[in-house]
Amino acid sequence: MTDTTSPALRTALAYYHAWTGHDLDQAMSYIADDIVCDAPAGRLEGAAAYRGFMAPFVQILTGATLIAAFGDDTTAVIVYDTETVPVKSAPAAECATVADGKITYSRFIFDRAPFEAARRAAD
Amino acid sequence: MTDTTSPALRTALAYYHAWTGHDLDQAMSYIADDIVCDAPAGRLEGAAAYRGFMAPFVQILTGATLIAAFGDDTTAVIVYDTETVPVKSAPAAECATVADGKITYSRFIFDRAPFEAARRAAD
Repeated sequence: MTDTTSPALRTALAYYHAWTGHDLDQAMSYIADDIVCDAPAGRLEGAAAYRGFMAPFVQILTGATLIAAFGDDTTAVIVYDTETVPVKSAPAAECATVADGKITYSRFIFDRAPFEAARRAAD
Repeated sequence: MTDTTSPALRTALAYYHAWTGHDLDQAMSYIADDIVCDAPAGRLEGAAAYRGFMAPFVQILTGATLIAAFGDDTTAVIVYDTETVPVKSAPAAECATVADGKITYSRFIFDRAPFEAARRAAD
């Protein structure tokens, strides 16, 4: 399932293992300065915006399990489940475009509904 | 990006092209009778439940674009964007386990939030 002959996947997995290990600095070393990320809430542009998106998530992350990982020269897809403080199972998929060892574009897919429900319940 | 040497991916793509072409009967021919699908709203068990989940979505579907597709002998991941009547861009990822040309397990990931917002706006 994990095709390590794919340079794009090597980068995507290094990034995944860094942030799920709560090392956001290391994770950001795989993110291009001019990354564009299409996330559920809208488009993020630039590494600072991307870090601002990831940092609160890494803070509430209590576990992650890789479900699938594939890639070719320039594209990688990783699918994983996360366990967070408010939501016990929050699966996600990332489809990353990689150039020179950095993620330049990412399509980030997850369900915001359980996070919104947890937020409403906490109000 | 589309590795047609993967038997699992061939099945997942045939299924994808069928339902995005509004041919739900054809799509269901690639779904195992005892499929288990972990969808955002919870687990679906059996082809009838799965069809009940897909049918309303196929009805509101106005377009679909494949973003990425990978697979190996038993697992396929497809990432795509859909355009629907209530939500103009609703990207999704499916990670499918395939046996004998049928999808036996599927992890379905998409963001329910814009659909819930559209429903509230229509009330």
